Amino acid sequence: MVRTRNPLNIGAAARAMSNFGFLHLRVVNPYEPAFREARSAVGAATLLANAEQYTSVADAVADCSLVVGTTALGRRELQHALRPLQSGAGLINRQLRSGRVALLFGSEKTGLSNQDFSHCHWLMRIPTREEHSSMNLGQAVAVCLYELARSGQKEKSKAVGLSDKQRIATVGEFERITALLLDALQASGYLNEGPTASSEEKVRRLVRRLHLPAGDAEVWLGMLRQIVWKVRSGKG
Amino acid sequence: MVRTRNPLNIGAAARAMSNFGFLHLRVVNPYEPAFREARSAVGAATLLANAEQYTSVADAVADCSLVVGTTALGRRELQHALRPLQSGAGLINRQLRSGRVALLFGSEKTGLSNQDFSHCHWLMRIPTREEHSSMNLGQAVAVCLYELARSGQKEKSKAVGLSDKQRIATVGEFERITALLLDALQASGYLNEGPTASSEEKVRRLVRRLHLPAGDAEVWLGMLRQIVWKVRSGKG
Repeated sequence: MVRTRNPLNIGAAARAMSNFGFLHLRVVNPYEPAFREARSAVGAATLLANAEQYTSVADAVADCSLVVGTTALGRRELQHALRPLQSGAGLINRQLRSGRVALLFGSEKTGLSNQDFSHCHWLMRIPTREEHSSMNLGQAVAVCLYELARSGQKEKSKAVGLSDKQRIATVGEFERITALLLDALQASGYLNEGPTASSEEKVRRLVRRLHLPAGDAEVWLGMLRQIVWKVRSGKG
Repeated sequence: MVRTRNPLNIGAAARAMSNFGFLHLRVVNPYEPAFREARSAVGAATLLANAEQYTSVADAVADCSLVVGTTALGRRELQHALRPLQSGAGLINRQLRSGRVALLFGSEKTGLSNQDFSHCHWLMRIPTREEHSSMNLGQAVAVCLYELARSGQKEKSKAVGLSDKQRIATVGEFERITALLLDALQASGYLNEGPTASSEEKVRRLVRRLHLPAGDAEVWLGMLRQIVWKVRSGKG
């Protein structure tokens, strides 16, 4: 949960997580008094006590191999693939066999920002009426987790081991590749000035869309390091 | 909603109803101040203003052809057939073709009474963890209505076109990217001699495994071209 402001919503999200068996809550820059209040709520006990607090989305999702943002759509033009909950949940459950998945929820008022979205592989939307698409945060969490639990039971019977090649790199590896690529693009003059927030987001999304197998991440990192070194050394 | 006590829950239920297109709310003996407060909540407008108030479940469901009670199970011995939400929603949607269906939710603390149950044809339960089966009322409403909307839409066409982002780059694009990458790797010294057949194959396989989205291929080609140009020009 990113920048959540209402303790009732944090508590409600935690309760739905417990109802449906999702026990790892991470919060990014919550409104402090709200988070404190939620933690001390009756019945919130274990799950909220174990909630981990972060100051950036990047840190919160670093060990995940898939990051999915939630959105009610709206004004913003989306740069990401947008999947309805039902099919998205199937993909998430498949990914869960081989790595951690983060499901991001934004603040009550503004949802997730474009900056938040840039950390996501794709976005997911609960199918609602066009006339009234914005859901209450706690309810949106409950509906998403219900669908995940629902489709997860179907997947269980199909579960098989995945080889290293089928597993996807972690977000941390994607992030290191993004940083090196930005470096190479800047040094080669593809990006003229230092990376702006927007060019950084674009490159991050571009890299995230790659289906980078876990076993390949180190190779790509090695290649990029060498290229960056060469571009920089050729310059001086 | 029967004997609901919390205005936030009444408001949340109404919001989920609006989100998923269920527009007829009936309340039975709500806690009066709570109902008044909920009615005046921001955004609750139409649906809550049109909510009908009753003093008995019997009156509230009198014009319905199917009455379904919700329960988290618990201590009580149930005299009714109990269906999980998924199959229950299917039955409800079939019934909706020919008549009105009432979906009953009880009070936050005690749920529906045996007296309330006696008005029901059968009961429905959201599958939750055994260790924590009791859901927040607003969330339970949201999850039930989501499943009803979901199963109601099943027959609608599943066929959708793929967007540019979901389509994969052509083999030709993969090949051009491979060639440029080989060029960059050679110029930067990552590959010492000219590319051998084996290193070329390795890099080609590496690129192929990326599942590169069609819309991104040109961007990657542009970036690689610039990097290759810089590495080569820095050299001479």
